[in-house]
Amino acid sequence: MEKNSSNMIPLTENSPPKKEMVCIFGTGDFGRSLGYKMLQCGYSIAFGSRNAQTSSLIPKGTEVLSHREAAQKADIIIVAIQRQHYNFLTELTEVLHGKVLVDVSNNLKINQYPESNAEYLAQLVPGAKVVKAFNTVSAWALQSGTLDASRQVFVCGDDNKAKQMVMDIVRTLGLTPLDQGSLLAAREIENYPLQLFPMWKFPIYLAIGLSAFFFFYSLIRDVIYPCIYENKDLSFFIAISIPNRVCPIVALILLALVYLPGIIAAILQLHRGTKYSRFPDWLDKWMLCRKQLGLVALVFAFLHVLYTLVIPIRYYVRWRLNVYVISQIKDNRTDPFNNTNGWISDSYLALGILGFFLFVLLGITSLPSVSNSVNWREFRFVQSKLGYLTLILCTAHTLVFGGKRFLNPSMYRWYLPAAYMLSLIVPCIVLAIKFVLIFPCIDRPLTQIRQGWERNSKGSKQSYYNDSKSAV
Amino acid sequence: MEKNSSNMIPLTENSPPKKEMVCIFGTGDFGRSLGYKMLQCGYSIAFGSRNAQTSSLIPKGTEVLSHREAAQKADIIIVAIQRQHYNFLTELTEVLHGKVLVDVSNNLKINQYPESNAEYLAQLVPGAKVVKAFNTVSAWALQSGTLDASRQVFVCGDDNKAKQMVMDIVRTLGLTPLDQGSLLAAREIENYPLQLFPMWKFPIYLAIGLSAFFFFYSLIRDVIYPCIYENKDLSFFIAISIPNRVCPIVALILLALVYLPGIIAAILQLHRGTKYSRFPDWLDKWMLCRKQLGLVALVFAFLHVLYTLVIPIRYYVRWRLNVYVISQIKDNRTDPFNNTNGWISDSYLALGILGFFLFVLLGITSLPSVSNSVNWREFRFVQSKLGYLTLILCTAHTLVFGGKRFLNPSMYRWYLPAAYMLSLIVPCIVLAIKFVLIFPCIDRPLTQIRQGWERNSKGSKQSYYNDSKSAV
Amino acid sequence: MEKNSSNMIPLTENSPPKKEMVCIFGTGDFGRSLGYKMLQCGYSIAFGSRNAQTSSLIPKGTEVLSHREAAQKADIIIVAIQRQHYNFLTELTEVLHGKVLVDVSNNLKINQYPESNAEYLAQLVPGAKVVKAFNTVSAWALQSGTLDASRQVFVCGDDNKAKQMVMDIVRTLGLTPLDQGSLLAAREIENYPLQLFPMWKFPIYLAIGLSAFFFFYSLIRDVIYPCIYENKDLSFFIAISIPNRVCPIVALILLALVYLPGIIAAILQLHRGTKYSRFPDWLDKWMLCRKQLGLVALVFAFLHVLYTLVIPIRYYVRWRLNVYVISQIKDNRTDPFNNTNGWISDSYLALGILGFFLFVLLGITSLPSVSNSVNWREFRFVQSKLGYLTLILCTAHTLVFGGKRFLNPSMYRWYLPAAYMLSLIVPCIVLAIKFVLIFPCIDRPLTQIRQGWERNSKGSKQSYYNDSKSAV
Repeated sequence: MEKNSSNMIPLTENSPPKKEMVCIFGTGDFGRSLGYKMLQCGYSIAFGSRNAQTSSLIPKGTEVLSHREAAQKADIIIVAIQRQHYNFLTELTEVLHGKVLVDVSNNLKINQYPESNAEYLAQLVPGAKVVKAFNTVSAWALQSGTLDASRQVFVCGDDNKAKQMVMDIVRTLGLTPLDQGSLLAAREIENYPLQLFPMWKFPIYLAIGLSAFFFFYSLIRDVIYPCIYENKDLSFFIAISIPNRVCPIVALILLALVYLPGIIAAILQLHRGTKYSRFPDWLDKWMLCRKQLGLVALVFAFLHVLYTLVIPIRYYVRWRLNVYVISQIKDNRTDPFNNTNGWISDSYLALGILGFFLFVLLGITSLPSVSNSVNWREFRFVQSKLGYLTLILCTAHTLVFGGKRFLNPSMYRWYLPAAYMLSLIVPCIVLAIKFVLIFPCIDRPLTQIRQGWERNSKGSKQSYYNDSKSAV
Repeated sequence: MEKNSSNMIPLTENSPPKKEMVCIFGTGDFGRSLGYKMLQCGYSIAFGSRNAQTSSLIPKGTEVLSHREAAQKADIIIVAIQRQHYNFLTELTEVLHGKVLVDVSNNLKINQYPESNAEYLAQLVPGAKVVKAFNTVSAWALQSGTLDASRQVFVCGDDNKAKQMVMDIVRTLGLTPLDQGSLLAAREIENYPLQLFPMWKFPIYLAIGLSAFFFFYSLIRDVIYPCIYENKDLSFFIAISIPNRVCPIVALILLALVYLPGIIAAILQLHRGTKYSRFPDWLDKWMLCRKQLGLVALVFAFLHVLYTLVIPIRYYVRWRLNVYVISQIKDNRTDPFNNTNGWISDSYLALGILGFFLFVLLGITSLPSVSNSVNWREFRFVQSKLGYLTLILCTAHTLVFGGKRFLNPSMYRWYLPAAYMLSLIVPCIVLAIKFVLIFPCIDRPLTQIRQGWERNSKGSKQSYYNDSKSAV
Repeated sequence: MEKNSSNMIPLTENSPPKKEMVCIFGTGDFGRSLGYKMLQCGYSIAFGSRNAQTSSLIPKGTEVLSHREAAQKADIIIVAIQRQHYNFLTELTEVLHGKVLVDVSNNLKINQYPESNAEYLAQLVPGAKVVKAFNTVSAWALQSGTLDASRQVFVCGDDNKAKQMVMDIVRTLGLTPLDQGSLLAAREIENYPLQLFPMWKFPIYLAIGLSAFFFFYSLIRDVIYPCIYENKDLSFFIAISIPNRVCPIVALILLALVYLPGIIAAILQLHRGTKYSRFPDWLDKWMLCRKQLGLVALVFAFLHVLYTLVIPIRYYVRWRLNVYVISQIKDNRTDPFNNTNGWISDSYLALGILGFFLFVLLGITSLPSVSNSVNWREFRFVQSKLGYLTLILCTAHTLVFGGKRFLNPSMYRWYLPAAYMLSLIVPCIVLAIKFVLIFPCIDRPLTQIRQGWERNSKGSKQSYYNDSKSAV
């Protein structure tokens, strides 16, 4: 998986006028890969190494020198060495004075050291202008040219001119530099490549928790109860029947939880009479992970669709249908067509199909490249209007699924209601409050508040400013 | 949804050498958010306000001054004030002389005022260099750092140097500036965030119209006719059976309409003997919304697939199958396997599956990020070759679905043919003409015309130029 | 498809201060389109043409001059002429001396000429600074403004300053310049728009080969064998039954082939005791097309899902179920429910659903815009951890599908085992070796090797460098 050079562009032999000389300390994987890439883009490269001897792995057209010699040749020095070996740099302090030192290092754990590697480097070599960059780029990606993961390079540093020089290099390599401010941001930048879906943690844990709860709830009602009272072994329900009960429930609850924080925020704003005071921290965090919540809900809806569509292929279902036909024959009867059942069966399926379709549409518009190509108004139309329509359709799908059985006492086993009834609580609350909020007498003051009006302020000085773009 | 600051990076306290000073008029939502973001990226910010007092909402590290004082401090002034309050700027004309005024405002309606806000600003402050920018960015996006919608910032202005300064700021903020030319483009830029899917309007209205027509057509044939003549209540067909008839029909017609304009264009070019004369306006517009037409068709095809796959779960279908089995038993017969029916049933399903698969493939390649990563030849291969193959498969799917019933007089109810037969008209015309157009005796002159050859010109002067890249 | 101007922004009449003058040789489609676009972005344009007369097609606001006059007016000359007409440029050598000549041409075939067009141009006009650019952009895309295909413009040239000037123009037009190095890269850049999915060739040919083999294998076992021995005509199996056998087999084998090269690489590295020696060429190439292999496998899995879900709609399946019920009635028996069959049927379906879901997830994360928004660690987590989980689930799905029939001698027809048994060979080998590789006693040295440790080197000098980012 690692070493690859098959799509490296052959370099010019009789090289034309070059870009400036750049020095790279360290001839490890990353240093060599970066050097090769920069060479391709027209830079001259000098490697600084403890033992200044060229190996076959060093890209042709570069020189390997001692650290001191290499540093003297260039204004920009890329330090592709691990943090624990930085201390030799103190010997080079006077050579590195005034030069741009680029820290590309990463740690193995989040917050491994008290200060970021880049800040540590700046302390070691006080005269140098330290810039953090390239730490999110992988050696493998540079070598293979296929930048599958991000092309973004986060750059930070205290010296603006040095930062600009590094950002020019980033741009020349075909990557996208993102200025993150002063060197204080280095800590966050160094933590970034160690993160594993931080925004997804809460939605995924919540989904797992809900799934586990409803799994055992259904297990008790649908497997253990018949096992005890009817002596039936329905343990194979664990494979499809129970997951197909859990998935739609979790999907519906998560979808409702996407819209709940917006409603809480609206109530808070109405209560406070202003939008200029902070929301509680949990609400802020909840609102920031709504997209992830929605996508996890979509995953469960997708699984529900698949589980439902395989129903007629299942051996158990085919057997039950056979038994039903045979019992009719034996009793010499033909059950007549029940028009109400026809309506209920078809309309809950139709509602489910339309709800799932809108759900998929929401998922597609949240793809980065799609959401990038719509304007703000279109994005809000899809995510808010179509989102609520999806929630309404999915809630209706569940209600009609209940159909005649809804609130039927015979459906209670051990006083436990059917699981789908529990799943309706949150969506119904959300839809009910939303319904109240769109009444004109409540919507009007809310809109005013969101445009900057404050109930308690003297006059309307805030509303004077350009708030037409505030998100709702 | 509104206020959020949880992922704002803490700013440097002992700030290092800053970028230039920028002044922002207006301390509303958008002004503050932009100020905060620029502060993060190293700019010094001075807010200009009517009452120069700092509130807790103003980002720390900025100063709030009177408009006049703030304007004197910076070369770039961002006017984050609503248009109706612009007139106070006339008093500052001499201070603003020669400075760059950035108009970030939006209107509430398309073409609300006779001239664009930016042009109005340029009239009010004749000595200033007005640049339009940032109006497509939302305050919420700037605050939260999650630029879900577009990162593109449209910039226009009459002074190139001023425009360049603003584009540099845009780039530093991690956004993508797009130069749209002179200040005349401001009207279009101001309308942009007010648009709601302008390219989608025609395809969606067309799809709704076609759906309504075929819905009522099927309603008459499949619900009202049996209700009158056979006294059957099939009203529940409205939920699934009729939509599942309408969806494939609309999908097929829309897909054919994607390829029809190209064929009309080819005929026009053959007839005129040149490609250097304009197409009629309606044809131009039609050709520009082909991608949207195709995606709407895909939506209907997707719904058709879902509606079809739930068929065996429907109560009505299960009941009918039961009745069929029981009737066989009662008559003491077993209907033998009909090989032709086996072939027809399996091949129309297989054609539909392959057609749908190619359809989904076309949809995926029209995602912006996917189409960006293919070259022009690959894009045309997929959209043209695979597109026609999809149309052929879907038309064949419909034809075989008809099977033996096709043109069978017993299928006419009230002299109305089955709806699927109507849906075949446009696709068959498109495929027939396309079949004629690929004959060498017609394809050769067409290719020549598209490479710049003109039937009526003396000589072939045009073909001398580089036309190898003209799209076909 | 061809000519279109409906979304061209009207140009300023009283044009504000312009950008520099650019000259375009050639008034063909591409020259005019590029000229129009540059005019919109503020450049002054002079066309150079053999017969210096303006036609109605030339954008308003530009002038058409002789080649010599036009060249004298500008520092940058875009040569929008086909290669075979380049020779007239030799007459203009002294006028073109020191000017930037931009070669935008393409060829009709890969490696059509011994040297690239740009290098040929540089030989013809020795004093000019030749830059290759714009050849991947289509005239149609420039005209319509809808850059559906790539926005990337590959730029190369021997003169860095000239290249920078051209890259500035590219950026102003809203496109993304990518510096590809010296003019030697022109050959590759010229070949690029002629390529048709080069990375997809091997996976697609492999998939076609495997499909053909398993198609005929199943044909023999499932159609020809019953035709000969049982005199049954099952030819309609060709439409759905056999494809639904071929698709899952090919999908599973291709998915296993995605992970096989990584395992071979690990074994090679363990054997050699170092990662610093090149892999064989075929392994390098194989590793570079793993993403494409995986996506082709996903296509087959998707088709398998569709083929499976239509099973209950098929006439043949319904007929068989009917016959089965009727036979039970006639024998006056009701087959009892078999709990083992219930478990097998439900669990193989559940495994298939979960496997397919993870497969789709892998496909979505390989979309360019999605993989761009995750960091390297997240990308590897999805593609490696989830990828192996997918492989395990799909292999288990196939094993459980076999169920009781697995290795049952009655399933052999003409000594041929069932096709699904053949499909299990590669995945089981991959999973078995992977299982061995994750044992600590093997995983530890492998991790060390991948961090730069070398068994045969004296000391651990390599491990001293920053290798924390090497991909695994």
